[in-house]
Amino acid sequence: MKKFVKPLLAALIVTTTAAASMAFAQQAPKPEQVIKWRQSVYQVLAWNNGRIKASVDGTYNKDEVIRAANAIAAIANSGLGALYPAGTETGKGWRETTVKPELFTEQAKAGEAARKFITEANELAKVAATGDAGAVKVAFGKLGQTCKGCHDDFRKKD
Amino acid sequence: MKKFVKPLLAALIVTTTAAASMAFAQQAPKPEQVIKWRQSVYQVLAWNNGRIKASVDGTYNKDEVIRAANAIAAIANSGLGALYPAGTETGKGWRETTVKPELFTEQAKAGEAARKFITEANELAKVAATGDAGAVKVAFGKLGQTCKGCHDDFRKKD
Repeated sequence: MKKFVKPLLAALIVTTTAAASMAFAQQAPKPEQVIKWRQSVYQVLAWNNGRIKASVDGTYNKDEVIRAANAIAAIANSGLGALYPAGTETGKGWRETTVKPELFTEQAKAGEAARKFITEANELAKVAATGDAGAVKVAFGKLGQTCKGCHDDFRKKD
Repeated sequence: MKKFVKPLLAALIVTTTAAASMAFAQQAPKPEQVIKWRQSVYQVLAWNNGRIKASVDGTYNKDEVIRAANAIAAIANSGLGALYPAGTETGKGWRETTVKPELFTEQAKAGEAARKFITEANELAKVAATGDAGAVKVAFGKLGQTCKGCHDDFRKKD
């Protein structure tokens, strides 16, 4: 049997290594891909933000606001911190990242900013469901403040 | 009073026109912006898709799958059809659009593809909440089929 042991062990090692590599590849996509994903997240947030703004500033469309607010809330709750792994402080996704180094060096502050964003996004989704345009305007304003706060602290000007 | 009437009318016209322009700007953003938004939507879907795949193929993480499935479902339900207005058949967002003309000319078929995607995205989110990895795998496979179907029919190869 001994002659089979080594090949078997070798096969096991190869298999395990391949599996580990695959797992690693899944857990750690390329920095440029991660930067592209996070740049895309903010575009999707901007699209939905604009739709709510159109309702708040113009003719209120309850269903449109619900759809947009739910998308923002689900994205806010999706674990966006995973899109800022070490190694993505600089680099190009769709374009050069505009993240400031502070996001990576002041993690407690960044985490607090993220929590505020999540809280206000959830509140907006809750209020949107009621169709109360006035309450949506207030919640939307508060959400906007959390966006602005994070941009001021952690995003370079274009 | 007559001398005040004309300026007042003029001011009213200017104000109304400005308001109408603003409303128009909100309702019809530039084609390149719309294309950028929709390209971003698919990147965000791909990110979340990859996270579910990592759980299905590797170590199952219930919370991660819930977060990702909820993001996919909320985006699916957000009214993505609005990202394909007339005038965006061609053009550059982050890059040249890869949409096929058929998406605009075969709207019933495109609508049916969208409905299938929404149905399976909602089913996946529902199943994800139970934490049943096997059921998630099945639902995730079905969702993937709706993605593939739409890509085959309505997306040019890269």
